[in-house]
Amino acid sequence: MFYVIGLGLCDEKDITVRGLEAVKSCSRVYLEAYTSILMVQKERLEEFYGKELILADRDMVETESDEILRNADTENIALLVVGDPFGATTHSDIILRARSAKIPVRVIHNASIMNAIGACGLQLYNFGQTVSLVFFTETWKPDSFYDRVKENADLGMHTLVLLDIKVKEQSEENLARGRKIYEPPRYMSIPTAVSQLIEIEEMRKQDILIPEKTLAIAMSRVGGGDEERIVCGTLAELAAHPAEAFGEPLHSLVIVGRRVHHLEIEYGESYAINRESWRNVAQSVYGCSLDS
Amino acid sequence: MFYVIGLGLCDEKDITVRGLEAVKSCSRVYLEAYTSILMVQKERLEEFYGKELILADRDMVETESDEILRNADTENIALLVVGDPFGATTHSDIILRARSAKIPVRVIHNASIMNAIGACGLQLYNFGQTVSLVFFTETWKPDSFYDRVKENADLGMHTLVLLDIKVKEQSEENLARGRKIYEPPRYMSIPTAVSQLIEIEEMRKQDILIPEKTLAIAMSRVGGGDEERIVCGTLAELAAHPAEAFGEPLHSLVIVGRRVHHLEIEYGESYAINRESWRNVAQSVYGCSLDS
Repeated sequence: MFYVIGLGLCDEKDITVRGLEAVKSCSRVYLEAYTSILMVQKERLEEFYGKELILADRDMVETESDEILRNADTENIALLVVGDPFGATTHSDIILRARSAKIPVRVIHNASIMNAIGACGLQLYNFGQTVSLVFFTETWKPDSFYDRVKENADLGMHTLVLLDIKVKEQSEENLARGRKIYEPPRYMSIPTAVSQLIEIEEMRKQDILIPEKTLAIAMSRVGGGDEERIVCGTLAELAAHPAEAFGEPLHSLVIVGRRVHHLEIEYGESYAINRESWRNVAQSVYGCSLDS
Repeated sequence: MFYVIGLGLCDEKDITVRGLEAVKSCSRVYLEAYTSILMVQKERLEEFYGKELILADRDMVETESDEILRNADTENIALLVVGDPFGATTHSDIILRARSAKIPVRVIHNASIMNAIGACGLQLYNFGQTVSLVFFTETWKPDSFYDRVKENADLGMHTLVLLDIKVKEQSEENLARGRKIYEPPRYMSIPTAVSQLIEIEEMRKQDILIPEKTLAIAMSRVGGGDEERIVCGTLAELAAHPAEAFGEPLHSLVIVGRRVHHLEIEYGESYAINRESWRNVAQSVYGCSLDS
């Protein structure tokens, strides 16, 4: 059996009981370590699972799937995935390969940012398509996300913005010289994300990400208990807020859509940088009816 | 501490390790039993968790939240929820009440249909807003979902359609006489859902749910391992397919949007009622480029 097992969002204890039983039955266990990260190190997972983990980076999952699937017709093999196997990054490719090799596959689901983002208090029903925001460079500022946000905004839907993670990045020099030396991982923070959004708005000028008029909710360490942070405000307020107030990575951002319900605004109020402006913008810009 | 714990999708083993530890620490454990169902009975959960469960129906969560939260400032109390606490139905109301009573709250996330639906092979990124379809009666056929599906379809996005569950329903006679006698639970099946969609299309005639031209994916028991079913086809094919082929409830349906990617179509192909028509419609109606 080839197991693809979601680890959930935070640490070794977010695996399901079913997932843990499957891991313990496996002869090889791979840990997919590129599309997202847990908040704990591999060693802690190994100790808790009682298994050695083989790190599987992007190269390996894409080019060495035969090795990962080796003997999975007669032994149990697992690929562990942060979040859910069909979360922001799907693992349909390796599942298709397993299937075409007649290897039985079992997916064990878990929470991912795609559903746990509901912790921000906005109804998942009312989210439109999800967008990703990558780190801008001096010369590369991809802005196709803006069209998607506009489509959602035009319909009044909320938008989940997933923020870039750079893992196993090589410097230009190391890349040019073919040296497999990697930079430390980088995680996009809320202040960077908000400034990039505003930068693109200034170029595109479609009035969908207006600093003083667009409400957003910043989330960090969703599901992380005491480490979880929720910060609500206008884009301008989020941009001016101290970076450390957003907590440790990973960060995610939600752009609030015009169809927001007053209960959603009320839920966010206690997390607002400025309650008064949170309510004022909700009423005057979003047309939300709030009790006074 | 007041814990709100997602149980995941299928049975007693889908709880996370963290969730199970929390349950075991609690002096009272409520099982929310109205917005969704697990595939196992309460007794099996009780045995596995080693705790007696108090059933909390809609009435109770809405009107007796004070009783549920009683002593949660000094003891651990849990509310168990099928799926994720912020899934299709959020539990923000009771969380707000707890917070305003200064009771510490901890949410423990899990998979819900809102993210596990990715198992159908369509990218979660490309889903628009989610809709619910309720059982029609002779005189009540609410069709506002159609406008939402149209909004998604116009942008080429996929739509998750959640199908009605009737739990603790009273017959008109029992309701009129004030007798708290409930009908057996009913779960909307794929054939019923598809026929209701086609019925509304015939009334609204916006050409978004065309029996021979709209592709859809039927899912049942998502995450249920051998019990999970995925069936792909046009709405007409799904309507004509034997009801038992869709497996046991719960069922969900996804309407495929025009921006579908060829890898998404290829993933679904092995689940298609008719592979040839699945590919033909993807190419000729959706404009998808597939290898021949």
